[in-house]
Amino acid sequence: MKIMAVNAGSSSLKFQLLEMPEEKVITSGIVERIGNDNATFSIKFNGEKIEQELPVLNHKVAVELLFDALIKHNIISKLEEIEGVGHRVVQGGELFKDSSELTEENILKIESLNDLAPLHNPAHVVGIRAFKEALPNVFQIAVFDTTFHQTMPEENFLYATPYEWYTDYAVRKYGAHGTSHKFVSDRAAELLNKKDAKIIVCHLGNGASLSAVKNGKSIDTSMGLTPLEGIPMGTRSGNIDPAVFGLISEKTGKGISEILNDLNKKSGYLGVSGVSHDSRDIANEIEKGNHRAKLALDIQTKRIADYIGSYYVLLGGLDAIVFTAGIGENAANVRHDIIERVKVLGTELDPELNQLRGENEISKKGSKVKVFVIPTNEEVAIARDVLRLQK
Amino acid sequence: MKIMAVNAGSSSLKFQLLEMPEEKVITSGIVERIGNDNATFSIKFNGEKIEQELPVLNHKVAVELLFDALIKHNIISKLEEIEGVGHRVVQGGELFKDSSELTEENILKIESLNDLAPLHNPAHVVGIRAFKEALPNVFQIAVFDTTFHQTMPEENFLYATPYEWYTDYAVRKYGAHGTSHKFVSDRAAELLNKKDAKIIVCHLGNGASLSAVKNGKSIDTSMGLTPLEGIPMGTRSGNIDPAVFGLISEKTGKGISEILNDLNKKSGYLGVSGVSHDSRDIANEIEKGNHRAKLALDIQTKRIADYIGSYYVLLGGLDAIVFTAGIGENAANVRHDIIERVKVLGTELDPELNQLRGENEISKKGSKVKVFVIPTNEEVAIARDVLRLQK
Repeated sequence: MKIMAVNAGSSSLKFQLLEMPEEKVITSGIVERIGNDNATFSIKFNGEKIEQELPVLNHKVAVELLFDALIKHNIISKLEEIEGVGHRVVQGGELFKDSSELTEENILKIESLNDLAPLHNPAHVVGIRAFKEALPNVFQIAVFDTTFHQTMPEENFLYATPYEWYTDYAVRKYGAHGTSHKFVSDRAAELLNKKDAKIIVCHLGNGASLSAVKNGKSIDTSMGLTPLEGIPMGTRSGNIDPAVFGLISEKTGKGISEILNDLNKKSGYLGVSGVSHDSRDIANEIEKGNHRAKLALDIQTKRIADYIGSYYVLLGGLDAIVFTAGIGENAANVRHDIIERVKVLGTELDPELNQLRGENEISKKGSKVKVFVIPTNEEVAIARDVLRLQK
Repeated sequence: MKIMAVNAGSSSLKFQLLEMPEEKVITSGIVERIGNDNATFSIKFNGEKIEQELPVLNHKVAVELLFDALIKHNIISKLEEIEGVGHRVVQGGELFKDSSELTEENILKIESLNDLAPLHNPAHVVGIRAFKEALPNVFQIAVFDTTFHQTMPEENFLYATPYEWYTDYAVRKYGAHGTSHKFVSDRAAELLNKKDAKIIVCHLGNGASLSAVKNGKSIDTSMGLTPLEGIPMGTRSGNIDPAVFGLISEKTGKGISEILNDLNKKSGYLGVSGVSHDSRDIANEIEKGNHRAKLALDIQTKRIADYIGSYYVLLGGLDAIVFTAGIGENAANVRHDIIERVKVLGTELDPELNQLRGENEISKKGSKVKVFVIPTNEEVAIARDVLRLQK
């Protein structure tokens, strides 16, 4: 059965077509700069990659372009072969406790959450409507970044701000990367052969978050109302003293949106190092002896260790730490630094296993807390949810 | 030898006169509403308390009032008996690594840090100048809330914000309550009979902060650029997603200073419970079954447990947790809740010892991590520093 996973941004449309339940990628690609004369469309299939530049008026045109390509390249012979579509949606608020079929009612609910994800939810809905129009009879669902964290207890998701901010404006911790946290923590529980496992997931990419997972449920996570909260990332600051707004505004005359832009786009690795948001560049600069690059990484790994310590206490123990996403899967040095910082918890890394690629247990035999690398796969997670809900 | 400890606010002047090195309080009191026709002056000595309402033009007048009272009530026979004065100063920035004599140069340095503590440092300097004028030949020092935390390493005190915010505007973590954290952690090391002890101090009052102390040095603390960062307090939110500024501004039209006012004055216990900033009121409301009061406390103790977990990892182990300040010294239920949350670290509270008042070891015999209540005494700490530096 062919199922498509879709991730629509404000000017982009990413897709992956999977053969399910085999979880085999048939084709994948992206349309970028939608709305422009020089949009690009790239698609991979049979080990080939085809790219073209062309005008793409809007998401509807992008979807047509995609379907034409699927037929033209004989990837499918007719659209009816696509039996389900899963759309990634960043913010499901408190309205969505699980992935949900995209009825008109649910699409309106997603739009009602625009305030909480002003850059993302409106773009998702544009993509969803384009797909619904093109495939009106196909089962389509939304898979939210937030639902996995909807199991957090009240004392963990509420801020100590005026309570009316929660009841009137929905200010609370929602978290993100939920599809990934669920995917890798489920897999870790399988590898541990333990349903009630206590797991800390480190999803470390350009965006990065941690979660504390107990009995398969997220009980806490480091991202908050938005992805800005938590640990420092490629360009995001993570936690700061909120009073920084006062001092920076006083000194520079900047307002809230400018300061938030600095915290989201000019901080983290980029802000501290002054060199790059990319962890590979940071690693290269550290090699060259760049103090601020080292500092950028040290500040991040220190804060990650802080979260691991607090989640150890929150979980009341720990079976495994799992690394995933771009940095988590590929940066052996970052994993090493983090595990070294938390070794009092009983983590012992095997330096050779830590160099391997792909899914691996990288702790020493006998390590009290196991350490895994588990590649995340949000598209497969989305396609699995389509299968599960279609039944 | 008589030494005076002074804490000057923008419209108040608190003082305590101590016999040193015996650390015996001779007299204490406060002038409030300085600058008003209905200012109040209260002074305690020999078990008596005298209060009066009167106009007090400025801090100079307040100091004269205090000295007149000391003579009039025969507490001292002449001003020359005061052989040292220690002034509490909230912010010493990176300029002061220790308590320091109040030379003209150092007073100007304190003023140069006004941007970092706009409500406090200017008021301290007014108080200092009034005392210097009244006692020009007496040894006087400043004791800073920040110096104890100046031993934090760079990776712990820097935010992952643009590096220029640090170099140009001094944005970093400074911490607070340093005099208290030092006082009680020194005492805990004494009780443990261990110089290289690993100690977590929970200074829990209406303002509240934690510190991680190793070998007698602060290596991390929960307050940041200002006292707003860290755990929720009586009226302060502690950490939030910085993006909360964006949503609240969008929804309410409030600017940075109004939102900061909400976070400093209308959050914490008060904001979540909607009832009170006072922990005793919160405890009473919890007794009555008030859910939001319970939530206010639970959010706070959860975040305290988070910090304890992260400091456990940072310290690489733990010898003792110490409670101090108003709530820490008096709220047995709060101590119980916190220790219950962190019991995976090997803390076992003795429920009977936990009910005692004053300095006590309140963990069970054999508890892997000891738990102490140690009453803080910032005035004694200030007077000790005057003695130490006078030599």
